Amino acid sequence: MTETRGSSDRAMRARYGAPPPSPTGSWNSTLDLLLRHRSVRSYLNDPLPTGSLQSLIAAAQSAATSSNLQTWSVVAVMDNELKSRLAAVAAGQKHIMECPLFLVWLADLSRNEQLADQRGISLEALPYLETFLVASIDAALAAQNAVIAAESLGFSTVYIGALRNNPTEVADILNLPSRSFAVFGLCVGYANPDALPDVKPRLPQKAVLSHNQYDNAVETEIFEGYDQTMAAFSARNETMRTTWKDRVFSRMSKVSQLAGRDRLRDALAQLGFELR
Amino acid sequence: MTETRGSSDRAMRARYGAPPPSPTGSWNSTLDLLLRHRSVRSYLNDPLPTGSLQSLIAAAQSAATSSNLQTWSVVAVMDNELKSRLAAVAAGQKHIMECPLFLVWLADLSRNEQLADQRGISLEALPYLETFLVASIDAALAAQNAVIAAESLGFSTVYIGALRNNPTEVADILNLPSRSFAVFGLCVGYANPDALPDVKPRLPQKAVLSHNQYDNAVETEIFEGYDQTMAAFSARNETMRTTWKDRVFSRMSKVSQLAGRDRLRDALAQLGFELR
Repeated sequence: MTETRGSSDRAMRARYGAPPPSPTGSWNSTLDLLLRHRSVRSYLNDPLPTGSLQSLIAAAQSAATSSNLQTWSVVAVMDNELKSRLAAVAAGQKHIMECPLFLVWLADLSRNEQLADQRGISLEALPYLETFLVASIDAALAAQNAVIAAESLGFSTVYIGALRNNPTEVADILNLPSRSFAVFGLCVGYANPDALPDVKPRLPQKAVLSHNQYDNAVETEIFEGYDQTMAAFSARNETMRTTWKDRVFSRMSKVSQLAGRDRLRDALAQLGFELR
Repeated sequence: MTETRGSSDRAMRARYGAPPPSPTGSWNSTLDLLLRHRSVRSYLNDPLPTGSLQSLIAAAQSAATSSNLQTWSVVAVMDNELKSRLAAVAAGQKHIMECPLFLVWLADLSRNEQLADQRGISLEALPYLETFLVASIDAALAAQNAVIAAESLGFSTVYIGALRNNPTEVADILNLPSRSFAVFGLCVGYANPDALPDVKPRLPQKAVLSHNQYDNAVETEIFEGYDQTMAAFSARNETMRTTWKDRVFSRMSKVSQLAGRDRLRDALAQLGFELR
């Protein structure tokens, strides 16, 4: 599977918007696939081939799950009326309507609770934050495997966190049982080739990677450099030239930017997650 | 990339411990890689090739991250003394000591907060549960990409959730800044070939996959069948023959099984996560 140095250089350059900081190790087609990920927000309305959903779910279920508890589920939404209602929750993101398959990933304690009820057993761990976190993380690991599987089959994807703008409304739309929660959605489909973004550069590795103890670099020049890289990216791919730091501050400095997600604790309580 | 039907049949049979329920769609080597995942708890002490860490982190950073906020970090622990102290937090799991690379994945709001401080801006979103959840999920998406990259390079992995038994102790060991939290660890190394488990079967797809609205099958026979599959798996791979339901009930019915994680809320408050 080892391929030429040129392939890894190209992939690293696209992902970091700069020459790779040092020679990389072995390279293969899976690393190429992972590094060329792009979140796509414009889809053709072509359906996926028969059997695709089964393959994506098998990949998802192959991800690790804490103690094999499997406290997640997924709803495959193809119905246009339901997609339209979910898109309304997510601030009208049109790609939810365009894509042929919209997967809603659930933290789902309801299945194990129901099985315990049948046996007359009470699951004392259910109300704890830990159990909610495990279910949400396991849903994320599963979804990411589905993303990799989808991209390997030539499909594109984008996560939709905005379902959390109103989790109880999503539960109504999808008829979710108590103790389940839509962590995020995922559009799956064929990318519109006329609206394909570039690979988005990320922070240099030394900004996110520590060795042995926390030693992340926070030197000003690292972030100034990345700000320039991202300003160039946004000028090429979007309508405005914006730096990364300005994006972060715009997104995180005002509670209003949470678009309802500041009430997540209350919504989760309504859905049966006490988060003790 | 499309391969023979035999390959997909074998992969599906191993993953579900039963013949695949219906013909699958296109198949390729990435799906094969994803489906043959196994969590490995016994490692050789051979080091990884030079450059491996850089490739794993590039794969991790290529995963989607909400609004490109990149609120996660990773600590690559190779020092034996530090691994030993982390293993002690995680109930003494010996594979943490055996593996040449132990990655600790952090939900990390400290970087963005520090950048905002430099600009004299306050990030109002920081204390919210939503922001913590985004950081934890993005750490999980990144880690799962690293797992896929590792397995593509011939390494094995296992997630270590037991770091959450004592998150403040982990923060001490790794010298973590305020507003960062070790979500889980990940052992990376070469599997001991004498202790390689089989692929662990998962629940049938109809138990976790709904169509359009929540309609997961909870028929008794599905879970009885899976209980038998898992009892056979545990008899082959472990010392005891145990059904899946008995495992779930044993794990979730008593708070004591949370091994300290019932105090996660308090620990997070100490680490700077108010979870408002």
